[in-house]
Amino acid sequence: MNSATPPDAFLVASHFSWPVRVYWEDTDAGGVVYYANYLKFFERARTEWLRASGIHQQAMHTQTGGMFVVSEAHVRYLKSAHLDDELMVTCTLIERGRASVMICQQALITSSDHAVLLSEARIRAGWVNALGKPARIPQDIQNKLI
Amino acid sequence: MNSATPPDAFLVASHFSWPVRVYWEDTDAGGVVYYANYLKFFERARTEWLRASGIHQQAMHTQTGGMFVVSEAHVRYLKSAHLDDELMVTCTLIERGRASVMICQQALITSSDHAVLLSEARIRAGWVNALGKPARIPQDIQNKLI
Amino acid sequence: MNSATPPDAFLVASHFSWPVRVYWEDTDAGGVVYYANYLKFFERARTEWLRASGIHQQAMHTQTGGMFVVSEAHVRYLKSAHLDDELMVTCTLIERGRASVMICQQALITSSDHAVLLSEARIRAGWVNALGKPARIPQDIQNKLI
Amino acid sequence: MNSATPPDAFLVASHFSWPVRVYWEDTDAGGVVYYANYLKFFERARTEWLRASGIHQQAMHTQTGGMFVVSEAHVRYLKSAHLDDELMVTCTLIERGRASVMICQQALITSSDHAVLLSEARIRAGWVNALGKPARIPQDIQNKLI
Repeated sequence: MNSATPPDAFLVASHFSWPVRVYWEDTDAGGVVYYANYLKFFERARTEWLRASGIHQQAMHTQTGGMFVVSEAHVRYLKSAHLDDELMVTCTLIERGRASVMICQQALITSSDHAVLLSEARIRAGWVNALGKPARIPQDIQNKLI
Repeated sequence: MNSATPPDAFLVASHFSWPVRVYWEDTDAGGVVYYANYLKFFERARTEWLRASGIHQQAMHTQTGGMFVVSEAHVRYLKSAHLDDELMVTCTLIERGRASVMICQQALITSSDHAVLLSEARIRAGWVNALGKPARIPQDIQNKLI
Repeated sequence: MNSATPPDAFLVASHFSWPVRVYWEDTDAGGVVYYANYLKFFERARTEWLRASGIHQQAMHTQTGGMFVVSEAHVRYLKSAHLDDELMVTCTLIERGRASVMICQQALITSSDHAVLLSEARIRAGWVNALGKPARIPQDIQNKLI
Repeated sequence: MNSATPPDAFLVASHFSWPVRVYWEDTDAGGVVYYANYLKFFERARTEWLRASGIHQQAMHTQTGGMFVVSEAHVRYLKSAHLDDELMVTCTLIERGRASVMICQQALITSSDHAVLLSEARIRAGWVNALGKPARIPQDIQNKLI
């Protein structure tokens, strides 16, 4: 995914991060976080990023009938997370289109002096209208996505 | 739950069972099936029991707006299940009311000559109408619940 | 479950609560939180209650080989939770035995002037040693469970 | 992912498919299967493909201490699945290395005369030894992966 990695300055500018604690429900018999569950962690961070931007998905769906739907997820798994770990999950908008956005996300374990990258993903989310069809992202939502 | 266990004859009469294979997704870092996931297994068996009785939940919901909702679940965990185990999950109607039913369910590992009981539950499911309010179970659904 | 409800004074004394936000992953096609997921919420609160009491499950398991395992869960579902809701999940020790404890838990939506009870559970957790056998809860863990 | 799509002849040769029924647990408040759950469906099909090839993961792990771990998952979501749908999930080995394999997977709804593609993924799974380190896939497992 190297060629599409955004420059550092951009990363710093739009960075959002959200803490996620690992519970029993997240782990599997291999003793680590189950691979599908990172998609749950990534979505929690995206939801909180939207909320911090003034976009409340439940209210937005009630008002417009529309919602964001993931059309593509490309995840790389580098290191494992374990029970009781506290992860930091980031969310960075790297591409904005009229009908979809591309978001870069990372799950890390951070301490005072360094960070270990566990997993990273590039997520494409498209807007679908009340009929479930791909459509242009409403302007007021576009304005809030910074 | 002994005092409420239905007599054997009844059990034999209304017994329904459904196989459930244990995958990585079902296990936790303790190496066994995570306790909440038995409720998923129990629901799969209830869904297949309804389907075998001619009740298709998605179609039923589209037609009537109503659905069954679990109001109480009492689960006992006796032995652990592990990755690759194949469980047999049973479903027995032990009480039928006008607005709710009580179902007894078990998760077992069975072989040719014996069975090991892993978990058992008593589940109360009530009918809610299109407005989300408790209501009488429609007569044609009552008729199919045997 | 009325007969076993602990007296109010006790509830106040040992009360622990933990916030849980509802995300897409927690909901089902009925538009509400899926019934099995309350067991996840309850476990998160129990884990945080243990952590606040100085008991770290991963470290405890590494040191002693033992762990708590749920042997019984009795859950009542009263009202539904929805996407974006913020729940408060409580944890109250109502019975302590030599080999197991009974915990009363509630999931509520609270506002400044009132609280709505969505679900409540009584959970029995027993200690199992490094061999996976029921055993007496180690004394130093007993001492921390207040 | 077009450029890497294997030629049809290869697809036919190594094709494996596994049925997956959609239950309440798999859906979300959008009324469709939650995006992370396709990774569960894909893993079930991979597990059954391994099992059909004579590779039992639990036994394999007990014997060798090693296991397959997903290092990369690239998923595209094209259409939604709903409650009660029966999906067909395929599994095709498209690349075999000494330490990892690449698998192409699809989730479809099939009827007698056509198929609708809901989601497809390319999954890289690497071998890790008993120490949790990347290692060469054992020869007897290599021999069974056809």
